[in-house]
Amino acid sequence: MLRLKSQTRDDWLPGALENMDVILLDHAHCEKKAASTAMNLIFRYQYRPELMIPLSELAREELRHFEMVVRLIEQRGDTFRKLQPSTYGGELYKAVRTAEPHRFVDTMVCCAFIEARSCERMKLLAESLEDRVLAQMYAGLLASEARHHQTYLDLAATQVSRDEVHERVAVIAEHEANVIASPGAVVRLHS
Amino acid sequence: MLRLKSQTRDDWLPGALENMDVILLDHAHCEKKAASTAMNLIFRYQYRPELMIPLSELAREELRHFEMVVRLIEQRGDTFRKLQPSTYGGELYKAVRTAEPHRFVDTMVCCAFIEARSCERMKLLAESLEDRVLAQMYAGLLASEARHHQTYLDLAATQVSRDEVHERVAVIAEHEANVIASPGAVVRLHS
Repeated sequence: MLRLKSQTRDDWLPGALENMDVILLDHAHCEKKAASTAMNLIFRYQYRPELMIPLSELAREELRHFEMVVRLIEQRGDTFRKLQPSTYGGELYKAVRTAEPHRFVDTMVCCAFIEARSCERMKLLAESLEDRVLAQMYAGLLASEARHHQTYLDLAATQVSRDEVHERVAVIAEHEANVIASPGAVVRLHS
Repeated sequence: MLRLKSQTRDDWLPGALENMDVILLDHAHCEKKAASTAMNLIFRYQYRPELMIPLSELAREELRHFEMVVRLIEQRGDTFRKLQPSTYGGELYKAVRTAEPHRFVDTMVCCAFIEARSCERMKLLAESLEDRVLAQMYAGLLASEARHHQTYLDLAATQVSRDEVHERVAVIAEHEANVIASPGAVVRLHS
């Protein structure tokens, strides 16, 4: 599914379903972080005009999702607040090489894998949640995550050949599977 | 107009009209910067849940404007690229006090004045540009700038009383008028 090398561990879904308030809060932070990442890329790569509109559109869509999840948190009587993130993103980005254009390509591929893993986990949530409002939200969102996955791979291919992108996808897929394999200390969307 | 203490110098409009390619490029960067400022505020003030949705909506609208200006630049056969910003923003923010809640209030008031000055100058452009596409874009945008001006003042008033906001508006209005008084070395939206 979406180039992922592994399926989510069996213990993740029960833990997530038992802690949906925490998952929702973490999810809101993930959307905020995704928007911020796209925004930072706009600044870092402003010398590549062809990236500006796709990245800006991504940032806007992530912000729209952020607002949606914050509103849902409030509707459930909870409040958006700080939350210790999972270590997933930080560990995943360790695969990014430092010199350009590798840095750009690897960053896009890592972003693509974050979207793919989100998509896989949102599908699990959508299929298992008894709360219809939540289930429908995740069913709706996972299509966006799948689309963003492809957008990031397409952006990677603006800088190097499709073959080179696929080579890095293979390498980073292995790395991502290792990063997500061991359960984190806390339950999160990417724990 | 919108709490501004001064009108734009007479020499600004002719210089801007003669350099519309530079003004448009600077304008795109200003929209990008405004989006980034709202995004940074989301991170800085994530312990204030009532700010999340208004700031996210602001960031999205600035990004939409960014995309619009980038597209217009491309339609005119030019390319989005780096540009040395005016010194206006940096000078204006010097009025921000460092301790909270002053830092928050002053930041909101400075953002409100940036929107107000943008609005005033976009009105000048909309009334003077012979290029109908450009004139219509600025006529459309200046209403958003006026609305954002009020949004930022409303956000300032979530933290302190309206009277305290008005006191800071008076102080920062004087400062803003001084900052914008002397022509910059280069022609910009806020030079």
